[in-house]
Amino acid sequence: MTEETAPRAAARRVGIADVAARAGVSLGTASKALNGRGRLREETRARVRAAAEELGFAPSNVARSLLTGRTFTVGVITTDSYGRFGIPVMRGAEDSLAAGEMIAFLCDSRDDPIREQHHLRKLLERRVDGIIVAGRRTDVRRPLGDDLPVPVVYAFAPSGGAHDCSVVSDERGAGRLAVRHLAKTGRRRIAHITGPHSHASARERATGMSEALAAHGLELVGEPFFGNWTEAWGRFAAAQMLRAHPDVDGVFCGNDVVARGVTDGLREAGISLPMQIGVVGVDNWGLVAEAARPPLTTVDLGLEEIGRRSAELLLDAINGRPAPGVHVVPAHLVVRES
Amino acid sequence: MTEETAPRAAARRVGIADVAARAGVSLGTASKALNGRGRLREETRARVRAAAEELGFAPSNVARSLLTGRTFTVGVITTDSYGRFGIPVMRGAEDSLAAGEMIAFLCDSRDDPIREQHHLRKLLERRVDGIIVAGRRTDVRRPLGDDLPVPVVYAFAPSGGAHDCSVVSDERGAGRLAVRHLAKTGRRRIAHITGPHSHASARERATGMSEALAAHGLELVGEPFFGNWTEAWGRFAAAQMLRAHPDVDGVFCGNDVVARGVTDGLREAGISLPMQIGVVGVDNWGLVAEAARPPLTTVDLGLEEIGRRSAELLLDAINGRPAPGVHVVPAHLVVRES
Repeated sequence: MTEETAPRAAARRVGIADVAARAGVSLGTASKALNGRGRLREETRARVRAAAEELGFAPSNVARSLLTGRTFTVGVITTDSYGRFGIPVMRGAEDSLAAGEMIAFLCDSRDDPIREQHHLRKLLERRVDGIIVAGRRTDVRRPLGDDLPVPVVYAFAPSGGAHDCSVVSDERGAGRLAVRHLAKTGRRRIAHITGPHSHASARERATGMSEALAAHGLELVGEPFFGNWTEAWGRFAAAQMLRAHPDVDGVFCGNDVVARGVTDGLREAGISLPMQIGVVGVDNWGLVAEAARPPLTTVDLGLEEIGRRSAELLLDAINGRPAPGVHVVPAHLVVRES
Repeated sequence: MTEETAPRAAARRVGIADVAARAGVSLGTASKALNGRGRLREETRARVRAAAEELGFAPSNVARSLLTGRTFTVGVITTDSYGRFGIPVMRGAEDSLAAGEMIAFLCDSRDDPIREQHHLRKLLERRVDGIIVAGRRTDVRRPLGDDLPVPVVYAFAPSGGAHDCSVVSDERGAGRLAVRHLAKTGRRRIAHITGPHSHASARERATGMSEALAAHGLELVGEPFFGNWTEAWGRFAAAQMLRAHPDVDGVFCGNDVVARGVTDGLREAGISLPMQIGVVGVDNWGLVAEAARPPLTTVDLGLEEIGRRSAELLLDAINGRPAPGVHVVPAHLVVRES
């Protein structure tokens, strides 16, 4: 027993003081070099890191917190109780945070500004290193607060603050991809059935659609059908569209729920899909897209990637490398049978 | 300015020592009385609390942690990446935790035992006061670990550990409620279309159904149709059922997704709903139940209540009042048009 424990007791844990001594720098310089903060010459930083590696320096969680003033926790405030948008964003963020050995407090503001400020106070009390605010709609939102003591990244719903950092989906790109696919598969008489005009996502997707139509020398058939994000609206609008424009051969739907209603409406009107009319949605929401008849061709907005990117940008900001501005995650087409 | 600041400076923050002095007890006793821990006579506890109230004693967050050894954080480990079950449970838990001034770390294990143990270690490193494990299926799961240093409550998926605390939905009760409703609305020839026999929820709901059928002097028409939790299965099974038993007048469906497939299948076979056949689902999943034609009558399993109850039981356990065993949250019927 003593033979086994003696060597371990002798192998004293390597501390930051040992690293500083080996590198020939002060304790403060060693700390700055290891936590990536403060201004140091690159040569000094490299020397300290080399010393830490040679000595096998591995700071404990608590020591790291004391060393860096960081808690290795971040707050995620989601406004999306349903989880439709929040959860994939959260999953993606968790991937990136775990890679940075961080863990997330999840708070659900339920789109209530009072709850949001309450959560903000609680997160700051707990000294989180940063905050991700995950929205449910792509409309611009007001910033979480002025002069916050920690970095904030806005995911999905961009901040209106001039110096804030937001990560958003490519709404126009989604419209362009959908229409490009319809045009490529030979559709020439394309109509548009979508959600409320008051939603930025409905307007932006329609703008992208117009750009792609123009690029292919096409014109939209009739006016866009703005309505709401329900299947019932999709069914109703499909019937209206058939009456007004019986020669339509492609429909770009603002999201998958509407597209599912449109496919039901068209199928029940005796239209053969996708032979007579091709349908493309937006969201790639598996539950809806795969249950539709036929399964929906749709545009994936990359929600998990928005989460991953948001967390990466937050980690960068925590490490002193903020990247203000609006970062756009590209969309991509998922071809199924519609 | 000085007039304004002087009184504030004079009003020194009331400390726990002041409370102890006023109540005529030791510092330790005052601490125990205020954090609700340890054994004290109720009279002593009341005296300390009265003193705290008289003095306007409000411990800071940090002071409370030092005072109580608690971090006022809990971990929630969810196995449900999709959010369908995890999110309502989480919402409910957050309600109860917020009432106890707690905040939750959310970890997504994605049904992977290695990720789960990784999250467990991270949560314990951060000295959470307790852990909620939220499952996706109602099948019994293995405990998170042996001799954990903090209380654990299992939500939705009960633990197989003999001394653990679990909060579950009333699966049999759901089957009973559904069939009782069908019987009460005059259905006498009732069939059952549901998910996989390997899922506890499918088996338990079928058992509850049999109990209610017997109570109403009825017998199930044919064998239960066990399949999977998809709309496509619901549509297919509805057609099979009509061929084998054209005189069916009620269908109990194992969940709402299956029920949506069944209503589509029956409607497309020319059956008038609910005139000829009544359909009841389980879940009250708004997205599915409200989009079905007709909107589904269904049994709500009270997922948010499971979350609330889990958090309450966890707070009780943290405060030294554990309640081991399986706690069942009652289901309730939601009547729509099917």
